Amino acid sequence: MLNSLSQIPTQPDLTSEVFAVSRLQKETLNGHKAITLWLTGLSASGKSTIARLLEEQLHYQGIRTIILDGDNTRLGINKDLDFSPAGRTENIRRVAEIAKLMNDAGIVTIACFISPMIADRQMAKQIIGEHSFFEVFIDAPLSVCMERDPKGLYKKAVAGAVKDFTGITAPYEAPTNADIRIETTVHNSTESANELLTWIQANKLL
Amino acid sequence: MLNSLSQIPTQPDLTSEVFAVSRLQKETLNGHKAITLWLTGLSASGKSTIARLLEEQLHYQGIRTIILDGDNTRLGINKDLDFSPAGRTENIRRVAEIAKLMNDAGIVTIACFISPMIADRQMAKQIIGEHSFFEVFIDAPLSVCMERDPKGLYKKAVAGAVKDFTGITAPYEAPTNADIRIETTVHNSTESANELLTWIQANKLL
Repeated sequence: MLNSLSQIPTQPDLTSEVFAVSRLQKETLNGHKAITLWLTGLSASGKSTIARLLEEQLHYQGIRTIILDGDNTRLGINKDLDFSPAGRTENIRRVAEIAKLMNDAGIVTIACFISPMIADRQMAKQIIGEHSFFEVFIDAPLSVCMERDPKGLYKKAVAGAVKDFTGITAPYEAPTNADIRIETTVHNSTESANELLTWIQANKLL
Repeated sequence: MLNSLSQIPTQPDLTSEVFAVSRLQKETLNGHKAITLWLTGLSASGKSTIARLLEEQLHYQGIRTIILDGDNTRLGINKDLDFSPAGRTENIRRVAEIAKLMNDAGIVTIACFISPMIADRQMAKQIIGEHSFFEVFIDAPLSVCMERDPKGLYKKAVAGAVKDFTGITAPYEAPTNADIRIETTVHNSTESANELLTWIQANKLL
């Protein structure tokens, strides 16, 4: 049933047909471009909160959006995956493919994933396309995230009750060249979302 | 890395958060509802052609759409899957999850998949939601599809060069209760797409 990606079945009979309506036509209908904002950062760094505030603001400006996050993908399309390194990579691969399809449909994707490995984020960028992918580093020190710990996950991880927990028992490779870095210890959530929105507008990304 | 679905890892720490902007708000912004039209039928029955003509017509009416088909999913998100019964079921499961996310984003999904098994289409309906899922049976007799054979696949399948080919070496379970049945031996592609569009409008699905 499932092959590893190094054993992709040869499918010479599959051809990638062009959509009847192009992405550009869909963007024109919407009146804005379709991009993917890829929010990476530690658990409790503020990704989801900022994403939600940003989505609200974009929506009220008539911009079509979707938030993809661990919650709505791990419980749905990726519910067959675990949190091992291979499971995380496959999680990111599928999410990136969905983000690409959303962009093809004219939708701005706000992807919120810890996505701790540089190589995985690089893969996501390659799948989505480098002109459509923007890496947003939601930056808060581990000590602050551990203090916030809204779901008590760090506490559990330290106690050994959660396996492969980023920052505790699994690595986080911070971006070295993010498109924008938002420091959530300097600004609160609303200010952080505004900072991101201002940057999007200043760079005419939409 | 990959668990079978009967071994879904327990993830008590994942909670399904409500989107910041609801599907209804997105539909309201777009001025139309978001549904999934699920086109099932044999290879060469006309699914993709009808989907493309329908998408064009919907687009020019200002309706946001995406086509999901074997070509753009088998080469992307589902490129790790084969055509065995288990691979086909997983293919349909993932596509249904994507269709659901598209609907959540306010997009009308036109899904074109042979999707030969009743149980798989039932699963898709369950994932997408019964009020959002419409089964469209693109009906042409096997003999006609074999005669059309635009990619020479039936010829290859009969010669034994393609494994698990629906209608030849794998079963097709025709819908017994489709929302609409389009007979593509009676109408040409344009007429068939118009028939589907007229039905969508008459039933105020959008």
